Amino acid sequence: MSHSMQQVAAWLEQNSAKSLADLQGLLRIPSVSADSRHRSDVANAARFVCDQLLAAGCEAEIVETAGHPIVYGEWTKAPGAPTALVYGHYDVQPPDPLDQWVSSPFSAEIRDGQIYARGATDDKGQMFTHVRSVAAWLQSVGSLPINVKFVIEGEEEVGSNNLDLFLKERSARCACDVAVISDTAQYAPGIPAITYGLRGIIACEVTLHGPKQDLHSGVFGGSIANPVNALAKLLGRLHDDSGRIQIPGFYDDVVELTAEERKNFAALPFDEAAYLKSLGVSQPWGEQGFSTLERRWARPTCDINGIFGGYTGEGPKTIIPAQATAKLTCRLVPDQSPDLLIARLEEFLRAHCPSGLRLEFKKWHGCPAVLCDLHSPYMQAARQAVARGFGKTPVMIREGGSIPVVETFKRLLGVDTLLLGWGQNTDNLHSPNEHFSIDAFHRGTLASAWLWQELAQGR
Amino acid sequence: MSHSMQQVAAWLEQNSAKSLADLQGLLRIPSVSADSRHRSDVANAARFVCDQLLAAGCEAEIVETAGHPIVYGEWTKAPGAPTALVYGHYDVQPPDPLDQWVSSPFSAEIRDGQIYARGATDDKGQMFTHVRSVAAWLQSVGSLPINVKFVIEGEEEVGSNNLDLFLKERSARCACDVAVISDTAQYAPGIPAITYGLRGIIACEVTLHGPKQDLHSGVFGGSIANPVNALAKLLGRLHDDSGRIQIPGFYDDVVELTAEERKNFAALPFDEAAYLKSLGVSQPWGEQGFSTLERRWARPTCDINGIFGGYTGEGPKTIIPAQATAKLTCRLVPDQSPDLLIARLEEFLRAHCPSGLRLEFKKWHGCPAVLCDLHSPYMQAARQAVARGFGKTPVMIREGGSIPVVETFKRLLGVDTLLLGWGQNTDNLHSPNEHFSIDAFHRGTLASAWLWQELAQGR
Repeated sequence: MSHSMQQVAAWLEQNSAKSLADLQGLLRIPSVSADSRHRSDVANAARFVCDQLLAAGCEAEIVETAGHPIVYGEWTKAPGAPTALVYGHYDVQPPDPLDQWVSSPFSAEIRDGQIYARGATDDKGQMFTHVRSVAAWLQSVGSLPINVKFVIEGEEEVGSNNLDLFLKERSARCACDVAVISDTAQYAPGIPAITYGLRGIIACEVTLHGPKQDLHSGVFGGSIANPVNALAKLLGRLHDDSGRIQIPGFYDDVVELTAEERKNFAALPFDEAAYLKSLGVSQPWGEQGFSTLERRWARPTCDINGIFGGYTGEGPKTIIPAQATAKLTCRLVPDQSPDLLIARLEEFLRAHCPSGLRLEFKKWHGCPAVLCDLHSPYMQAARQAVARGFGKTPVMIREGGSIPVVETFKRLLGVDTLLLGWGQNTDNLHSPNEHFSIDAFHRGTLASAWLWQELAQGR
Repeated sequence: MSHSMQQVAAWLEQNSAKSLADLQGLLRIPSVSADSRHRSDVANAARFVCDQLLAAGCEAEIVETAGHPIVYGEWTKAPGAPTALVYGHYDVQPPDPLDQWVSSPFSAEIRDGQIYARGATDDKGQMFTHVRSVAAWLQSVGSLPINVKFVIEGEEEVGSNNLDLFLKERSARCACDVAVISDTAQYAPGIPAITYGLRGIIACEVTLHGPKQDLHSGVFGGSIANPVNALAKLLGRLHDDSGRIQIPGFYDDVVELTAEERKNFAALPFDEAAYLKSLGVSQPWGEQGFSTLERRWARPTCDINGIFGGYTGEGPKTIIPAQATAKLTCRLVPDQSPDLLIARLEEFLRAHCPSGLRLEFKKWHGCPAVLCDLHSPYMQAARQAVARGFGKTPVMIREGGSIPVVETFKRLLGVDTLLLGWGQNTDNLHSPNEHFSIDAFHRGTLASAWLWQELAQGR
């Protein structure tokens, strides 16, 4: 280990309590970007991250956007060395259902070596490892071996609507050789991983409007279309009984898994019974002809994320509801086009909507899937760094989630992204009782510190 | 007109403002039986009705049950004369969606000759006409020409669960020759009606349980069944594309309309375009081969009254929900059996529930459809009375709603029921801005006063 890395590692060890306390401070800010009632909390979280970068020794500022602000930071005093751009997000998913949390979602309570909070792993805790690794280099060695830039946004959970414009307007300032994101997961406890593929996404909301108000189901039942019945029938058409999506052309551009990938996936340790048990379900489900890992990582989906219409209170109420709404997302794989598929989804829904009902269709963010270069020098550096931080060579995996910015970085900055996940899939991200391992937090911070060294040497 | 009826009619005229003010007092009590938070309001409404009966000159008491109380009243000082039993209910449907009411649902505001309140027509306003007609006889003439009993319950909107026991335990006290209920509607404005048939009902709630908590739709999507997708598909199977219910055996016991009934229905004035416009829909919908009136009055239905699952807040949320729930009611026609059909519905849902999900099925109240004797002397008396009150001979119709107690009276007391509706189908019962015509309220009260005389003479 180089003398510098010895100093950095020692600093991280001595300051581990402070690192954790600062993370708790960030997690206690309820920066829910989807909920306009939390606007000031989101702004406070940006301020917190900016202050941390300044304290680490970076230059940093809060950049206002049409939505929530972006925190930009940099330390660029290593001329000739490569430049890494760290991306992360300080906004979080809504915490509900609140009654299922053991401790309050913004209390950042520590239990059994885990820190519990909405955003603990997605993405405040993972993002924060890079802030602390840079602090470690700058506060111990006094410099970094490469140039590091930070773009930490507040709209990842609502579609990153203002990030493109930010990057376009600052493409020179954001210029880099590689991007680094920690917003994925290790393969399993004790099996660190680098993620080389992500699914894309399209998202929408569909509402069927029927009578102008809720009607008595006895007096009027049987004479007009019921929007909830119709929505159920419409959404029920999305899959056939073998789990295959029925939108015409949906699979046209799907890049099939290679034989090598299927072999690699099959070689990964995967205890399906334990997986299902951890989720509380008795059986897997999905498109026939693919393994569970294949379906999660490399096959598209169409999931209803929420549905509501009519009476939802206690007891019965005999009405024909005036309307019914569903929120839908499809996960996409290479080379499915979000724009094409959201149009095909809308067309499919409109084609099957019963006459007499009005269909309202609302689109949200979309992004294509990505596959990264497995053989770049940056990928090799990342493998070394993760091995140093976690004491084990990472496996190379794909992931079912979407990180739209990876595609954005490729398109706007011309760089690949290193997806270095420190969390676990069992961390309950987007669910009640989200948590992040404190050990993973510290190991991830150490791996990040190593990454700056490995990227400098790999040049 | 007899001297007695002259006195009664004059009294009603002189006391019309008091009748209306007392009705407003009753309507201002939010007696929502389905919502446990309104328990004391329900009790207050019972007290109010009991006090009104006492003030009218009846004996009356509040009888506690395992649920909400029943108000029993009687005036039985006409030995040898027939006995009529008036049934009504002082409980109301939940008022939501609250934001769609022009005036608060329990303010009983009067606008343009209508009184607006939850329960205005269903059933406080209609039921109260009989209380006032009895008051008129007793306060003007000093006696009634027949015996009258009142059973006014507080659980009609939640299944009348304690009424059977009440009637069984008091079958001698409740003994009567005919029952009278005003909880239906006139055929149309200016076309008074007597309803000789009602649909029955079954009601249930179905919940599909999937993962033990909401899951990230990217990380887990495609690997397990989504309860909302599955519920949509399941409920979508309830009807085929021609509106026919797909539950096996559902239509087995349906008594088809007679040629005469179809002819009578077709002869009624019915402006389908105006009907649809009043509901805010562009087209009718339902089982093919039947007219809209036939589908509403004499064909069974299966309506989803409410559905909910997953994220229902602002913006997108990328989850696989842990569960999804729907509330369903089927309207039944003679001779469909509620017990048999609720079992067939549950069986159908369980048969099509995807493996890997747990189906929870909750049953509520059910009741069979009824058809009353068109040719009884009581029916003739009622025709005369309605003609006197409204100045026009009533048409004989069926109705799509359910009044379970009609079947109960037949079974437990051995009597037919006169269904004398003073309201209109456009009174928004079970919907926002429920209202009742003040003119109909007064005419209904006069018709009720005539009914006691006609029943006495018809003997």
